[in-house]
Amino acid sequence: MKPYVGSEVGRLKQVLLHRPGKEMLRLTPSNKDDLLFDDVLWLERAQHEHDVFAETLRSRGVEVLYLADLLAEALADREARERVLDVVVTEEACGPGIEEAVRNYAESLPDAELAELLIAGVTKAELLDRADVQESLTLRTLGADDCLLAPLPNHLFTRDTSSWIYGGVSINPMCRPARVRESVNEEAIYLHHPRFADADFTVLGDGVGSGFASVEGGDVLVMGNRSVLVGLSERTSPQGVERLALQLFEAGEAERVVAVEMPKARAQMHLDTVMTMADEGTFVKYAGLGMLRSYTIRPGDAKSPLHVEANAPERMHAVIAEALGLDSVRVLTTPQDSLAAEREQWNDGANLLAVAPGAVVVYERNTVTNEYLSEQGIEVLPIPGNELGRGRGGPRCMSCPTVRAEN
Amino acid sequence: MKPYVGSEVGRLKQVLLHRPGKEMLRLTPSNKDDLLFDDVLWLERAQHEHDVFAETLRSRGVEVLYLADLLAEALADREARERVLDVVVTEEACGPGIEEAVRNYAESLPDAELAELLIAGVTKAELLDRADVQESLTLRTLGADDCLLAPLPNHLFTRDTSSWIYGGVSINPMCRPARVRESVNEEAIYLHHPRFADADFTVLGDGVGSGFASVEGGDVLVMGNRSVLVGLSERTSPQGVERLALQLFEAGEAERVVAVEMPKARAQMHLDTVMTMADEGTFVKYAGLGMLRSYTIRPGDAKSPLHVEANAPERMHAVIAEALGLDSVRVLTTPQDSLAAEREQWNDGANLLAVAPGAVVVYERNTVTNEYLSEQGIEVLPIPGNELGRGRGGPRCMSCPTVRAEN
Amino acid sequence: MKPYVGSEVGRLKQVLLHRPGKEMLRLTPSNKDDLLFDDVLWLERAQHEHDVFAETLRSRGVEVLYLADLLAEALADREARERVLDVVVTEEACGPGIEEAVRNYAESLPDAELAELLIAGVTKAELLDRADVQESLTLRTLGADDCLLAPLPNHLFTRDTSSWIYGGVSINPMCRPARVRESVNEEAIYLHHPRFADADFTVLGDGVGSGFASVEGGDVLVMGNRSVLVGLSERTSPQGVERLALQLFEAGEAERVVAVEMPKARAQMHLDTVMTMADEGTFVKYAGLGMLRSYTIRPGDAKSPLHVEANAPERMHAVIAEALGLDSVRVLTTPQDSLAAEREQWNDGANLLAVAPGAVVVYERNTVTNEYLSEQGIEVLPIPGNELGRGRGGPRCMSCPTVRAEN
Amino acid sequence: MKPYVGSEVGRLKQVLLHRPGKEMLRLTPSNKDDLLFDDVLWLERAQHEHDVFAETLRSRGVEVLYLADLLAEALADREARERVLDVVVTEEACGPGIEEAVRNYAESLPDAELAELLIAGVTKAELLDRADVQESLTLRTLGADDCLLAPLPNHLFTRDTSSWIYGGVSINPMCRPARVRESVNEEAIYLHHPRFADADFTVLGDGVGSGFASVEGGDVLVMGNRSVLVGLSERTSPQGVERLALQLFEAGEAERVVAVEMPKARAQMHLDTVMTMADEGTFVKYAGLGMLRSYTIRPGDAKSPLHVEANAPERMHAVIAEALGLDSVRVLTTPQDSLAAEREQWNDGANLLAVAPGAVVVYERNTVTNEYLSEQGIEVLPIPGNELGRGRGGPRCMSCPTVRAEN
Repeated sequence: MKPYVGSEVGRLKQVLLHRPGKEMLRLTPSNKDDLLFDDVLWLERAQHEHDVFAETLRSRGVEVLYLADLLAEALADREARERVLDVVVTEEACGPGIEEAVRNYAESLPDAELAELLIAGVTKAELLDRADVQESLTLRTLGADDCLLAPLPNHLFTRDTSSWIYGGVSINPMCRPARVRESVNEEAIYLHHPRFADADFTVLGDGVGSGFASVEGGDVLVMGNRSVLVGLSERTSPQGVERLALQLFEAGEAERVVAVEMPKARAQMHLDTVMTMADEGTFVKYAGLGMLRSYTIRPGDAKSPLHVEANAPERMHAVIAEALGLDSVRVLTTPQDSLAAEREQWNDGANLLAVAPGAVVVYERNTVTNEYLSEQGIEVLPIPGNELGRGRGGPRCMSCPTVRAEN
Repeated sequence: MKPYVGSEVGRLKQVLLHRPGKEMLRLTPSNKDDLLFDDVLWLERAQHEHDVFAETLRSRGVEVLYLADLLAEALADREARERVLDVVVTEEACGPGIEEAVRNYAESLPDAELAELLIAGVTKAELLDRADVQESLTLRTLGADDCLLAPLPNHLFTRDTSSWIYGGVSINPMCRPARVRESVNEEAIYLHHPRFADADFTVLGDGVGSGFASVEGGDVLVMGNRSVLVGLSERTSPQGVERLALQLFEAGEAERVVAVEMPKARAQMHLDTVMTMADEGTFVKYAGLGMLRSYTIRPGDAKSPLHVEANAPERMHAVIAEALGLDSVRVLTTPQDSLAAEREQWNDGANLLAVAPGAVVVYERNTVTNEYLSEQGIEVLPIPGNELGRGRGGPRCMSCPTVRAEN
Repeated sequence: MKPYVGSEVGRLKQVLLHRPGKEMLRLTPSNKDDLLFDDVLWLERAQHEHDVFAETLRSRGVEVLYLADLLAEALADREARERVLDVVVTEEACGPGIEEAVRNYAESLPDAELAELLIAGVTKAELLDRADVQESLTLRTLGADDCLLAPLPNHLFTRDTSSWIYGGVSINPMCRPARVRESVNEEAIYLHHPRFADADFTVLGDGVGSGFASVEGGDVLVMGNRSVLVGLSERTSPQGVERLALQLFEAGEAERVVAVEMPKARAQMHLDTVMTMADEGTFVKYAGLGMLRSYTIRPGDAKSPLHVEANAPERMHAVIAEALGLDSVRVLTTPQDSLAAEREQWNDGANLLAVAPGAVVVYERNTVTNEYLSEQGIEVLPIPGNELGRGRGGPRCMSCPTVRAEN
Repeated sequence: MKPYVGSEVGRLKQVLLHRPGKEMLRLTPSNKDDLLFDDVLWLERAQHEHDVFAETLRSRGVEVLYLADLLAEALADREARERVLDVVVTEEACGPGIEEAVRNYAESLPDAELAELLIAGVTKAELLDRADVQESLTLRTLGADDCLLAPLPNHLFTRDTSSWIYGGVSINPMCRPARVRESVNEEAIYLHHPRFADADFTVLGDGVGSGFASVEGGDVLVMGNRSVLVGLSERTSPQGVERLALQLFEAGEAERVVAVEMPKARAQMHLDTVMTMADEGTFVKYAGLGMLRSYTIRPGDAKSPLHVEANAPERMHAVIAEALGLDSVRVLTTPQDSLAAEREQWNDGANLLAVAPGAVVVYERNTVTNEYLSEQGIEVLPIPGNELGRGRGGPRCMSCPTVRAEN
């Protein structure tokens, strides 16, 4: 199957997931905030919940790819190994005292073990135990179980690190330092894994961020009709959106980007935490979001590469409908008191993953929202998320569609 | 049964729990920090987990009392109603504009509904809907679902609000404003419920705190041998411990208090989050706690009501053994890496509730600690805590023993 | 002179100040946030600046009263001593171990020294050095220079602790625990100092707060025309405003209270940090404040003690004009870029103290605002505030008018 | 004069300062934390204080260089302009919509104006007013006075951005994003300004950091005897120290680096906020610092490029004496209570700049420390710092010696 994502809700055929692993065992109450998690996870239970998620997708005919497997397979390629290690095992990260020893150790690992190291990081104790390293200044200042290379627990949220938008993939420049290395791993996959290396698609961006021009996939909705809906959020900057729009227009993958100005807050970190699609022309929206100011971006001219039009907040839904070539869109907002609405939004009640038009995977705990969606004719496929949800992310966050039909 | 708690690990015969209810629906991502919770709970699931907890206790012959039931029954007493409403429905809380109307509304409620109001608080919408109130300035500044009287979600942790210590009960002066009203409810029970009103016991303290002299039950361990182990924590102050010690000595309920100086941190909020008892002379202790400076407090003389002796950190275990009249104590610390230890401590791995010597209720998720305890001969009774644990509290925190045998 | 404050801008005849003293030496980088200061002060320089402030007032014929002097004189009264020590030197604050010894020590002090203790608190080292105390548990847990009784550095801001409103004085129920003891000291002055004890005025409120019904004087503007303008701020609650309004109406001191709903933020802690009066019918307002929703409160009827009318934000100025019996008010807002405006507001640019209609004391550092006011015909009396301003308070915050003419 | 810094306390001959300018007007209460300042400054007064500082240095025969002047002169070089603009005016910072227009605007500026833009940043209003730009998405999301390119107020602290160590200069990889662009400006000066371009010195490092291998000059003390004392602080990482040591050894500029492990806290951000040198073999040290664990680093061998020896905390002073080739060092700690000590440390009491052995520039406000130093035979040259100190930095922080004699 050629990678191609034609919409948010067309039949989902292939998706990239990451089953949580050893990286989660390095998440602690002390470091969780730096690693952007609200709580630590019970790994066995989280894996079980994730398996239910994958099985639910498979039961609807979706092929599930696992990031750790693809990364291991990509690392069989010598060039992929070189590139990844050049970026990750640096003098700056390790200190010159042991940089070479850590590199030698990493080089010596079988593909799957190296993939695990790139995802889970490596502790001082592991290095002293397995690698031929001497105590350096850097190692001496670490506790035995501290990581020299940090773990990447947010790989769980494959949605953010790369975004397939029609026939192109944006390897995203992540906003937060704790997530930058995720893009390196995904780049290795897209450029070196046989499944992708031989396929025909456009790479948008190079995954190298700067803190200014960041884009995270949770803010990117492939609306359909060659249009893209983007959130200007805590994590996705206007500079990032400009770059993405320009790349999409140059590659001919899209004709219009609608950017909505979101409140900057952890609870509404990405657009897909407050607004997603459940069916053709049908959006699910958090009651507390309100109407947002938006911008319609189209290809520009010689003088100015992008044409940007500002839209008043009250036109938000109309602007989206226009982008979809529709007269209007349907917006579903669960009728419930504001406290319950805030609780369900927090627990990813709006973070739907459509497997087909009108059929969505959701967390079972948001019972009111789920029941309301059912009443509105949406087929709801509930999965458990007691552990998975502790990172503040739901079914959409945990999935990166690689093949999906137009509506 | 006469209320009496003779130890931490003797056979548990009766315990006070609070099944989480409507108050949890008023906990939101926005107010959770003020209400001292780390996350919001899925109520139905939390209730189910709590029922498993209660059933586990009953299966070991423990009688389970429910706070909401006792409170409702106590409120049948006219005097109890008056006292509670005088403290809760004040001009200061409601504003003079509607104080009388709210009081009238509360007075009119049947016992069980009034008990629920005292536990779950009341929203503006509820008042406008059910009570005969007019919009006041105070009401106008509230959103429809905002609470005029705040909910008390921490009633879940019945351990903290009152502490039975041998033949006396301390209605605790709570540290944080969000928990002060819990003591009012418990006082109503102990002074007015027939089960207690007619029993023979000493009331220590009056539940009125000041922020200076606070004591919370999670810091109080009834070690046995007329001794008490207390944590000087973020929540329990030295002034509070002095008062408690003096009351215990004056009432003849205890002869010695050992106070240990704890780090002031949320993760180690109370002593029982890092150290509890599993058997006679046997303690379970978090690896990261280390040895603490302690003070042995005994009755003083005319000049000075308390005799206080300071003990060096390395004598911590010896000081506890002395208080128990033993040569030494057994201290169990799970052998695991420091990251795993920190994770399991965070998830209440050390927060054991003994139902009999050597038999303890624990959260199932701390698999390494639980397995270690089993190997050490402790009988482990696991319960689920996926939801319950989000308030940072385990089986000991969620229970207030009212009848327990000496060892 | 009979204490009476008839307006915000009428001729100022007598004012209560507090010259910063030893309490400021107990403010440190570690405790400053708890004590509500943004920085520590260089005491000698702060005293010098304060002396310039007082001298500026005297040069305009204002009599300056000093809080520490009045308090010392009030404490000559046996009853005043008893009352203050009963509230301050409690078992809860000191622990039962040394409560009596601390009380004896305090009782033994000459008036001026006791006044200093009540303002500056007392450290462990001082007690061990001067009082007949033994080491108690509470003392043992303190460092030598830690305070057993906390200092009250915010006494500098005499504006907040009591408010003279026409012929009455509200001894204010302070919002933050760090300031509650200030009200105790001021109550001693108003009830026991000969200057006040024999005068004819109404005491509104009793200075005992609860965290719910708080009022701080920075939120109270005596507009004139028997009207009062109040800010519903981070520190002044609607319950507190209801109580104050009721007391004012019952005492016949005022006929109307206008309450404006402010943003809840430290930078705009009180109404007088963003809006004050400079002349009759003339307000100075921070550019970033915008138009606020307001409520007009008047005496109610049998059913409801207060009549409250809500006003749309755009009517803010009109509502104030109505309260003043004017057709309109003049609102001065410095024309400057938003960065400069934010900087000058932060440095109390809007926190004017009028000494007469059209003559105001200001901090010299807000050069743009000061020049603008001059151009508008306001006479500007600049004082230095390099040190004084570090507590986030300007001339109005640092003054409590006790005698001021109607406009 | 050839740039060369042979010690901390030898005669100071030339120093690089930055007189605060327009960048300070872009510091606001809202953005100050991101820009690492504790307060906003009154610019005119800060400039005056800074002029007193510079004049004090000149009065001791020190030549004062100004960063803004040197930068302007360096930018006369075409290559310097290109390099700086390539790094600063990027697509990522500006967005592709206006990158070219901003570049054109910057190119068009005279040297001094471009230098100011590189230091003070540029606002949306300035761009719309002066440059030929159209509204882009990025501009539209900014307020009129918001900066597209951020200001660099921390240039005031020239100490941190580059460190002359014997005959080499480290253009430092800064820890915090808000300071990274400072290194770009300094690099332009050292590589392109005629004063340096033609001189003979070694450039250590390239000023490009990664967040891992950071070094800030406040942590670097040129002790003398070819030794360097370095703080492992909140801002200087062990990886950074390893790199610096290796570069120093390879260049033959130093033979030994002693690294001390500091607490990670803002109040003790750099080593020179708690410990500096006042005379040959004489250190001034904050009472609250205590004895620190340290590491002695020397050139290594083929297998390991650095030889690292760990030293117990109690050997701290001995290790430093050894590095200086002395039997012992003299350590001056002001005798004062712990509250006063904390206050004076906070206000840069230990942040001395020696102009000659035994003669140091200090802030006048730390009166107790200054008097103590005088009593100990140190000549104290006080300067005002009411405004300058609000960024948490004293005379040493605000100076980058470029020529200083060996002791």
